Amino acid sequence: MEHSSIPGYTYGQVSRSPVTLDELDLLKQTVLFSSDDVAALAQAGQVLAPQTDAILDVWYGFVGAHPHLLRYFSLHGQPDGDYLARVRARFGQWILDLCTKPYDQDWLDYQHEIGLRHTSIKKNATDGAAAEPLIHLRYLTAFIVPLTATIKPFLQNGGHAEAQVEAMHAAWFKAVTLTATLWSYPYVKEGQF
Amino acid sequence: MEHSSIPGYTYGQVSRSPVTLDELDLLKQTVLFSSDDVAALAQAGQVLAPQTDAILDVWYGFVGAHPHLLRYFSLHGQPDGDYLARVRARFGQWILDLCTKPYDQDWLDYQHEIGLRHTSIKKNATDGAAAEPLIHLRYLTAFIVPLTATIKPFLQNGGHAEAQVEAMHAAWFKAVTLTATLWSYPYVKEGQF
Ligand code: HEM
Ligand code: HEM
Repeated sequence: MEHSSIPGYTYGQVSRSPVTLDELDLLKQTVLFSSDDVAALAQAGQVLAPQTDAILDVWYGFVGAHPHLLRYFSLHGQPDGDYLARVRARFGQWILDLCTKPYDQDWLDYQHEIGLRHTSIKKNATDGAAAEPLIHLRYLTAFIVPLTATIKPFLQNGGHAEAQVEAMHAAWFKAVTLTATLWSYPYVKEGQF
Repeated sequence: MEHSSIPGYTYGQVSRSPVTLDELDLLKQTVLFSSDDVAALAQAGQVLAPQTDAILDVWYGFVGAHPHLLRYFSLHGQPDGDYLARVRARFGQWILDLCTKPYDQDWLDYQHEIGLRHTSIKKNATDGAAAEPLIHLRYLTAFIVPLTATIKPFLQNGGHAEAQVEAMHAAWFKAVTLTATLWSYPYVKEGQF
């Protein structure tokens, strides 16, 4: 999957996050994120890279099976196939970015951008879609569970020892929680994030 | 731990949550919460009940070791011992409630109350404390990780088979994410929860 070929993927070209790198560091401490997790995620990235399509099939299947989730890709109850497909390509890239990108200023900035794209400030704009204008925050937080639970079998497919799979899974859980946390920023009242 | 003996514990006596039971049901679906999880949590409650003090030692140790967390129990950098102790008793009760209470209207209402108690609307009021007026939402969400990761060894202490421990742990993860999600309500901009 090549960056430049993904429509709307603007990593490294977005506005600065209101969250500082020092605040990110405290958040990392809070989710127990260490250098071991960086290494485990790098390994997870290698295991998951050839499987991104199969992973996205599971996640899109989950969304598609639940009207209260599919509505966010829909207008008046009609799912927008183009929108679903374009977002899917960026979602695939996100799996790799989460595992392999350094969590630096560019990464932090793009987390803020992704958060905004879930809110009325930027939703639909990237793809010229006309779907629901906002994804409710409760589902972003709740998604930590399905995105963490469903990744385990894919991590197991890499042929690594059980302890190593556990380490990759724990690191993935921390990384997903970290990003879901950062994405909540634009939803939260002034000064309360 | 008896309810009536816990200062400030007002389960069943609080205002109605703005979240409906139908919305709770959709959230449960989103975190993959099923009747199997209810059963696994009931079993977890039995395993954890005699260990609540040891669990709270771990959690309070984690908070105490991080100035960016301990500040929420502090005024001008000075931790409030009374406040810490009173909240600790309710936190212990919460472990049992999460595992054993039905997730009905009373439960939903108390989740909203706990959320409020983390915000400037109600923080400190229950205990007449004078600590920081608000816990930032980012740490509530981030806490899903330490509260989930640290419970595993305590679940293992019950002498159950590994698969059963995994089931209890998965159910706990879902329940903690569900509550952290509900608690975010008062932090979120109108209409975006
Ligand atoms: C932790 C939870 C979630 C993760 C990790 C996630 C991941 C992503 C990613 C990586 C993108 C593309 C970002 C980009 O433009 O580069 C995206 C966009 C999107 N996601 Fe999510 N998402 C989450 C929650 C949800 C939920 C609950 C829904 C509702 C079904 C949802 C629906 C969408 C939609 C509609 C877009 C397109 C937004 C736009 O118009 O630009 N997401 N998500
Ligand atoms: C998912 C994350 C969290 C859980 C499960 C949790 C759990 C609880 C519970 C059960 C209570 C007592 C509720 C009652 O009054 O009956 C409470 C209160 C409190 N928690 Fe949390 N908490 C979380 C996040 C945090 C964080 C990140 C902090 C910051 C260190 C924190 C600090 C406090 C404080 C200071 C109180 C007392 C609030 C008051 O003045 O009434 N909590 N928490």
